[in-house]
Amino acid sequence: MSDSSKGSKKLWGGRFGDTTSHITEKISSSIHFDKVLYRQDIRGSMAHAKMLNAIGVLTDDDYKNITRGLEDVRHEIEEGTFEFSTSLEDIHMNIESRLTEMIGDAGKRLHTGRSRNDQIALDLRLFIIDACNDISLLLKRLILELVTLANREIDTVMPGYTHMQVAQPVRFGHHMLAHAWALVRDLRRLEFTLSSCDNLPLGSGALAGVNYPSDREMLRKELDFSKIIPNSMDGVSDRDFALDFLYFASMLGMHLSRFCEELVIWSSSEFSFIRLSDTVTTGSSIMPQKRNPDIAELIRGKTGRLYGDMISLFTVMKSLPLTYNRDFQEDKEPVFDAVETVMLSLEGMIEMISSMEVNSGRLKETVYSNFSTATDLADYLVQKGVPFRQSHEVIGNIVRYCENEKKDFFSLKLEEMKKFSDKFETDAVDVINPETSTERKASYGSTSKESVKNQIKMLQKILEG
Amino acid sequence: MSDSSKGSKKLWGGRFGDTTSHITEKISSSIHFDKVLYRQDIRGSMAHAKMLNAIGVLTDDDYKNITRGLEDVRHEIEEGTFEFSTSLEDIHMNIESRLTEMIGDAGKRLHTGRSRNDQIALDLRLFIIDACNDISLLLKRLILELVTLANREIDTVMPGYTHMQVAQPVRFGHHMLAHAWALVRDLRRLEFTLSSCDNLPLGSGALAGVNYPSDREMLRKELDFSKIIPNSMDGVSDRDFALDFLYFASMLGMHLSRFCEELVIWSSSEFSFIRLSDTVTTGSSIMPQKRNPDIAELIRGKTGRLYGDMISLFTVMKSLPLTYNRDFQEDKEPVFDAVETVMLSLEGMIEMISSMEVNSGRLKETVYSNFSTATDLADYLVQKGVPFRQSHEVIGNIVRYCENEKKDFFSLKLEEMKKFSDKFETDAVDVINPETSTERKASYGSTSKESVKNQIKMLQKILEG
Amino acid sequence: MSDSSKGSKKLWGGRFGDTTSHITEKISSSIHFDKVLYRQDIRGSMAHAKMLNAIGVLTDDDYKNITRGLEDVRHEIEEGTFEFSTSLEDIHMNIESRLTEMIGDAGKRLHTGRSRNDQIALDLRLFIIDACNDISLLLKRLILELVTLANREIDTVMPGYTHMQVAQPVRFGHHMLAHAWALVRDLRRLEFTLSSCDNLPLGSGALAGVNYPSDREMLRKELDFSKIIPNSMDGVSDRDFALDFLYFASMLGMHLSRFCEELVIWSSSEFSFIRLSDTVTTGSSIMPQKRNPDIAELIRGKTGRLYGDMISLFTVMKSLPLTYNRDFQEDKEPVFDAVETVMLSLEGMIEMISSMEVNSGRLKETVYSNFSTATDLADYLVQKGVPFRQSHEVIGNIVRYCENEKKDFFSLKLEEMKKFSDKFETDAVDVINPETSTERKASYGSTSKESVKNQIKMLQKILEG
Amino acid sequence: MSDSSKGSKKLWGGRFGDTTSHITEKISSSIHFDKVLYRQDIRGSMAHAKMLNAIGVLTDDDYKNITRGLEDVRHEIEEGTFEFSTSLEDIHMNIESRLTEMIGDAGKRLHTGRSRNDQIALDLRLFIIDACNDISLLLKRLILELVTLANREIDTVMPGYTHMQVAQPVRFGHHMLAHAWALVRDLRRLEFTLSSCDNLPLGSGALAGVNYPSDREMLRKELDFSKIIPNSMDGVSDRDFALDFLYFASMLGMHLSRFCEELVIWSSSEFSFIRLSDTVTTGSSIMPQKRNPDIAELIRGKTGRLYGDMISLFTVMKSLPLTYNRDFQEDKEPVFDAVETVMLSLEGMIEMISSMEVNSGRLKETVYSNFSTATDLADYLVQKGVPFRQSHEVIGNIVRYCENEKKDFFSLKLEEMKKFSDKFETDAVDVINPETSTERKASYGSTSKESVKNQIKMLQKILEG
Repeated sequence: MSDSSKGSKKLWGGRFGDTTSHITEKISSSIHFDKVLYRQDIRGSMAHAKMLNAIGVLTDDDYKNITRGLEDVRHEIEEGTFEFSTSLEDIHMNIESRLTEMIGDAGKRLHTGRSRNDQIALDLRLFIIDACNDISLLLKRLILELVTLANREIDTVMPGYTHMQVAQPVRFGHHMLAHAWALVRDLRRLEFTLSSCDNLPLGSGALAGVNYPSDREMLRKELDFSKIIPNSMDGVSDRDFALDFLYFASMLGMHLSRFCEELVIWSSSEFSFIRLSDTVTTGSSIMPQKRNPDIAELIRGKTGRLYGDMISLFTVMKSLPLTYNRDFQEDKEPVFDAVETVMLSLEGMIEMISSMEVNSGRLKETVYSNFSTATDLADYLVQKGVPFRQSHEVIGNIVRYCENEKKDFFSLKLEEMKKFSDKFETDAVDVINPETSTERKASYGSTSKESVKNQIKMLQKILEG
Repeated sequence: MSDSSKGSKKLWGGRFGDTTSHITEKISSSIHFDKVLYRQDIRGSMAHAKMLNAIGVLTDDDYKNITRGLEDVRHEIEEGTFEFSTSLEDIHMNIESRLTEMIGDAGKRLHTGRSRNDQIALDLRLFIIDACNDISLLLKRLILELVTLANREIDTVMPGYTHMQVAQPVRFGHHMLAHAWALVRDLRRLEFTLSSCDNLPLGSGALAGVNYPSDREMLRKELDFSKIIPNSMDGVSDRDFALDFLYFASMLGMHLSRFCEELVIWSSSEFSFIRLSDTVTTGSSIMPQKRNPDIAELIRGKTGRLYGDMISLFTVMKSLPLTYNRDFQEDKEPVFDAVETVMLSLEGMIEMISSMEVNSGRLKETVYSNFSTATDLADYLVQKGVPFRQSHEVIGNIVRYCENEKKDFFSLKLEEMKKFSDKFETDAVDVINPETSTERKASYGSTSKESVKNQIKMLQKILEG
Repeated sequence: MSDSSKGSKKLWGGRFGDTTSHITEKISSSIHFDKVLYRQDIRGSMAHAKMLNAIGVLTDDDYKNITRGLEDVRHEIEEGTFEFSTSLEDIHMNIESRLTEMIGDAGKRLHTGRSRNDQIALDLRLFIIDACNDISLLLKRLILELVTLANREIDTVMPGYTHMQVAQPVRFGHHMLAHAWALVRDLRRLEFTLSSCDNLPLGSGALAGVNYPSDREMLRKELDFSKIIPNSMDGVSDRDFALDFLYFASMLGMHLSRFCEELVIWSSSEFSFIRLSDTVTTGSSIMPQKRNPDIAELIRGKTGRLYGDMISLFTVMKSLPLTYNRDFQEDKEPVFDAVETVMLSLEGMIEMISSMEVNSGRLKETVYSNFSTATDLADYLVQKGVPFRQSHEVIGNIVRYCENEKKDFFSLKLEEMKKFSDKFETDAVDVINPETSTERKASYGSTSKESVKNQIKMLQKILEG
Repeated sequence: MSDSSKGSKKLWGGRFGDTTSHITEKISSSIHFDKVLYRQDIRGSMAHAKMLNAIGVLTDDDYKNITRGLEDVRHEIEEGTFEFSTSLEDIHMNIESRLTEMIGDAGKRLHTGRSRNDQIALDLRLFIIDACNDISLLLKRLILELVTLANREIDTVMPGYTHMQVAQPVRFGHHMLAHAWALVRDLRRLEFTLSSCDNLPLGSGALAGVNYPSDREMLRKELDFSKIIPNSMDGVSDRDFALDFLYFASMLGMHLSRFCEELVIWSSSEFSFIRLSDTVTTGSSIMPQKRNPDIAELIRGKTGRLYGDMISLFTVMKSLPLTYNRDFQEDKEPVFDAVETVMLSLEGMIEMISSMEVNSGRLKETVYSNFSTATDLADYLVQKGVPFRQSHEVIGNIVRYCENEKKDFFSLKLEEMKKFSDKFETDAVDVINPETSTERKASYGSTSKESVKNQIKMLQKILEG
């Protein structure tokens, strides 16, 4: 319980007359969400204390006490025995206050040469770095599932779509790998985010640097950063790294929404291309026949919160003068929400993909019955010397004829075809076979078997690297 | 604790083989946030039971048991003894399941003639209606504070700005009421939202209506709706009312961000127009002189989450086919977040405005020293027969002369003025007085004292109405 | 051609030394887009001149000359002979300058008692009012097309979906009217926007009101406003009405995206529910068989620009202090873009709906083969005394059996059904008929024929009203 | 003029009965905006033709004719004699059609082995690459202006702010470089975008690859790409590169909005920190004294359109199934708008910064009169042995005393200070000097002169590199 109802006297209260009001504490407290930063905050304080000891600001005894005390605090938090206080506002003050309770005056010396402004900039960077590393593993696992699936279904041919209309035959694996390549780009964005985070802000002080000869190079090494932020005002004003993360998350969300849209459509009885596992579908409390692709829908829907999280922070930052402004308190919840959403979505995707059944019979039926090889047939006439524009028109007319007669290419007789062009010979039948069509694709990156296998190898290399 | 780790057999499980996976439960459960709907859910169930009893579907005994049972459930939730279960997914199933535990088979009959699709549409509407009513009170209190302040400072004159440059003298109260009028528009949007919510969805069933002769007119009256949704598919597909609320909230957030921006700037030492109370400012743990306008900054920053909440739901809804899709689970958290944010922000504004000191001396100094009456001086020459364009140029030149000589209008001698135009007479000095300037404003809605008083009366009438 | 390359001396240049730079003119000129406001600007100036004449500021001669001159300017613009100049910045200055060229000094007197700040606020309101009126007509035409279609296909039954899975049989017309009701809500939002616009800003001056006894009541009547803005600072600061329009447009875009998504999916060969007319589909330059639903896709895609337009203006407004700031120049292009997008989208929808063929045979086939009446069958057992939860499970098991045996409900023999429950009798076959299912829906707003007819009547009344 | 009013027969029209409707042409034509891609389209066609010639699909004569013809087309477009046709839909068809008019059948052979799907993916990538290179130069020039300004004002000290309250003295140059470092991060994002674009899509065909042995490696070299897209479906579905650009632009816009916000505030008479040049300020047509910082406001406002552009495309992409969908037509205008906005904004910033005067006298006055060295004074007591928390309170009390007595630190007598703590000695006066305060900052990245000089060197190296 907080003592907020009676208002509270703060550590910074020297020049203040009245106490803070109840509503002020309610709005300005962030401990209910920023407590998830406790590990990063303690890690940063450990490194800071070590550095203060090295430059002679903290005695060896103080340093030892602080280290031990911080470990005890972490233990209390992880055990659930730590009492968080709203009137202590944030995770930094909660930990410092408890530390001082435990070890006395040494705790008060820990804050020498830093301010909450550079402290929170550090904590949030460390948090995002940790999150990116976790996310990277899941992202790679999902890519691996797609590679595995593509390999397993290497011989399955399906209709490729443009405009949701059957366009040309493609390999099922080729389609799966198109999604995998999008995820590889997400990995690149994740790495970009990591490198954005990889700059030490600690030592920037409130905004101007500090009056102590802080050894920021030592801090950098202790905390595993590659670089030190060279401008203290920038150090406390910059939230680009958080936006980079939210952008990564929005892009990933968008990619997953496209994939899930397909899974939902393919699960419809009209398509019946796949069967999602019972473990990722749910029924209806009313309609006994339903098998709903809830997980795919939920992941698709979660794109909304990812876009929203990004727009939130972009809005907060718009027109804010340098340096630290309290508006920055609003930078954390979008990040926390996006981390959790991304992790959940990736786990859900892995579960769906790994347990999904592909209905290759239905795929075959569809690719055979939708004139998917009309382009091949047009190319056939081109080879026989017909200019492409004319050949395109001929095939267009055949399709129209078939639709009127309720026929597909395979039920056409040679005589019927010859009515449209006398160039047709018996070998035309090979051309309308969707399965040989994929093998006629001769360009690098095409849907041919060799190309799909090549992609699988490339992706395996990326996953290993 | 949920039983989710072992997977769980669901009520809808008839046609399913495998149990739901752990990750599926984690993604698809909404009980951790939708439990705030318990009051609305119970209220809806009460009305539904009453209607089922009236049309003979529930016996009197069943109806009595259900009513009593639902009251007990509410009591348990409010006492904190209710055990929410993740595997029961949502608030509806949690309540129904506990009810059945308590009262037996009658509990199972409650769901007759409705589905979760129309049930959640009802709950969310009721929740937003309740929230709007609470918010309306706060909004009116804030307007009242502004009216009170405008009245108190009726004689305080300040610089009015365009482009953050001193433009013309205005009354402080006039400026405050400009914000009040924006909030009056927000009241209108709140009423629009209320009327969007004010349509009963219950009775739509899963999507097609129900096989029972539900008395929806009776439900409408019981639940205080004005209208019944005339299309069952629309009844379960429509989330416009939630977007209307999020739009209202974004607009309010935008208005408050503009106001808070001014409060922050006016609190700077360079402006020093106002002094925010100690109760809404905070100090720095490092810099002893600081008095930071945190609450104003936080409210300004919270605009970000309101825009984000709105974009979240707009994104979710984009391209969703009819009718209910599971993506809809993502409609609630943005609404809950926005309700809380709006309430907090309004409470914070009320506290700031009611306790703020206006530095009328500093305002006077500023409005006297910035050529704020240059336009009046130009009008003076016009009255003496000089065409406006020429008069504008004359005054422009005088301003330039003053800046070079480091003078203001009041330190100009008549001889100096006459160098720019021989039309200047001794009465010109009246014209440069910022305080008489406001009274020269002769148009309806202007910054004159009478006009400000008139606005105060109009606003009081609105608040009463 | 503008004279911008050499920089230009402005009318407001009295106190300025250097001329404006080239890039300044390029950024700050708005004439390339705000010229579409010419009609509103001239209309406002006409009313303003009339009022100035009435209060004795303009002589009868001046007034006559101004009126005639403005008509000539309008004529020039409509004939395409008017030369717009970038260095004159905006539509107001372009028109005023040309007017003065034409009629001399009287032109210079027109600007008495107003500023560009209240002038643009007026023009933009008038523009949006005009646009709303045009849009309202198109919106009603689209609703009418849906009503007509619903009426024509009153006997067509189709599968209703939740989660893109066949849920229950619904009438095709019921589905169409679900969209119509969403559009009716859009009409309400359009009316709200109109009422937001319906407040006269003219007479607010630069921000403080004007030194002239402007007869704003006369202006109000002349320009057909219901109300006068009672606070001059609010009059030049408020852009809520533009956001209201952009919100309306985003909501409409969202509704259309849902509808178009369905049209795209229904046009796929797998669904084949409808056939869009040749006039709204296009082919491929490569694939001769393609018939792409481009218009539906484009309208769906245009949702993006509508959301973007709204977010643009919300971002501009965030944290802007009162009153007029030059950032406001960015308020117009989103509005113009949204007006055009909405008009185009509605015209496209009307064309698509009015020329669309419904494939009722395919709809029937789908609704018959997907266990769409499983709920009815469960209700059947309930009527025979089986508790609903048990009955739900029985039907779930039958569905599973059918799927394994590749059967549908209609090929089941009574003996087979009796294996699952001995309550089944020969009358069960009536219950599984999708067409009678819609008629069993007994609740107001359901998918029964009577209910659809009732909706048609209600909508016709709204369209007439 | 287009022939759209009568409807038109298309090249892809083989299977179509009716002609396209007027509204369809209006919605689906993109030539009015995509014509800016003509250079990229022609460059891509040149490379494609060369490759087709190399693999024997085009004869040497055809190739020569095509090359010459394309150069003629480009010439016509640049001369303004090219007639764009709406009924030819887009830039690709307009150019191909004109080419064929000029050179006959060879023109029809150019489209062999490609489709508009991979063609537009290529054109847009090339366009963004070109734009990024232009933007990079402007961005570097702006950074250079900031470095130059920081260097020039190396000895100017100003108040550093947190929460818009004076916090600690900083060098003006340090503040300028904080913005420069943000722009350096934008350069990194620009490079990321370039690397996203740097993957050849041509050769992907409609979606499945092509039936010709396209030499994509040759295309890659001809068109200066580093890599080839390894999956043809991904090649036509991926728009990440465009989002990367829009994200870069939004981030830059956000950075500039923060900077411009400061310029606007600093230009207010209350701050008077800087004087923007007459070339980038404007006056008022009404108020002769005004000098408005329009360019800073406009750039700040343009952030709105950049955020809007990004959200537009993110919305378009949400839930789109693979591969090409016509919604993609909406990907170009946001990109074109953002390119133009970014270029204009950067040019405006360069003009403002390079011509801005810094009012060092006013800065000095402000930093001297706002207790900006309170932290230093607290540190002074710490050095005299007072614990920091106590010292913080002492100084807080002194500040409060000064405010009540209307004094600043410099008018305090030693006796007065001693009343608060007997540790104060005559050397305390050194500590309250804001100018020596900056030099006491001992940490890397601080606001000391050496640190600012070091940053200047680092930035110069980046600009050279």
